[in-house]
Amino acid sequence: MNFGVSFMTLGVSDVAAATAFYVAMGLNPHPRSNPDITFFDLHGRILALFDRTSLAEDAAQEDHHDGSFGGSTMACNVSSPEDVQPMLDRAVAAGGTLLRTPSEPPWGGLRGYFADLDGHPWEVVWNPSCQVDSTGRISF
Amino acid sequence: MNFGVSFMTLGVSDVAAATAFYVAMGLNPHPRSNPDITFFDLHGRILALFDRTSLAEDAAQEDHHDGSFGGSTMACNVSSPEDVQPMLDRAVAAGGTLLRTPSEPPWGGLRGYFADLDGHPWEVVWNPSCQVDSTGRISF
Repeated sequence: MNFGVSFMTLGVSDVAAATAFYVAMGLNPHPRSNPDITFFDLHGRILALFDRTSLAEDAAQEDHHDGSFGGSTMACNVSSPEDVQPMLDRAVAAGGTLLRTPSEPPWGGLRGYFADLDGHPWEVVWNPSCQVDSTGRISF
Repeated sequence: MNFGVSFMTLGVSDVAAATAFYVAMGLNPHPRSNPDITFFDLHGRILALFDRTSLAEDAAQEDHHDGSFGGSTMACNVSSPEDVQPMLDRAVAAGGTLLRTPSEPPWGGLRGYFADLDGHPWEVVWNPSCQVDSTGRISF
């Protein structure tokens, strides 16, 4: 059960406009992108663009624009649903904070969130439609 | 000149404590880490831990804790110093904001910063001690 970064998700105010910006930078949206979320596959690490308020809600963060939510999250994909809780437990044992106990998001799978010592939110997620290799790279 | 993510840097209040947290999560610091910054090499993408105030200053951001600086940055390493300005120009042409014109940081190389449409700061950096392959992966 390896810890690493599989997704980096930026909270944005307008997914279409933000997508156009990153396309202009040279990135190509993954075919599984949809109007709610854009995925850019950077050779196995995914840069995602998602509505900022929805992202804060998913991470069980209040988005007060007071700096308590930084506007982005990182995710560690795990390869089975049984790995989600132990990874959250590991973070709490290391001094992190549990933000959200594991539950099924609307798009399926299982995910919880923790914050590191400085409040950076991490999703720990099992997504049955994503394969994770031993280096943490995603194919989906 | 490819755009992508080579570094993800989290601003932290105590680099040693934050490092201990991520070590407890299972990551191994890269030998080039030092007391000011920790690098974790995630198979060619680097997760870095750096003092939050210093990170905000490097990105030419005020850290008012009002949400204007989210507490983290991403970097796109380029393979020559001549690529820094054109990548910043590309971002500005796409509607981004120039945060910092190219200059040499104390640790060498050349770097500038832009913000995307939602204020997420990106460093565009040439670091002579980092090799970037065509997929954006770093070896250093």
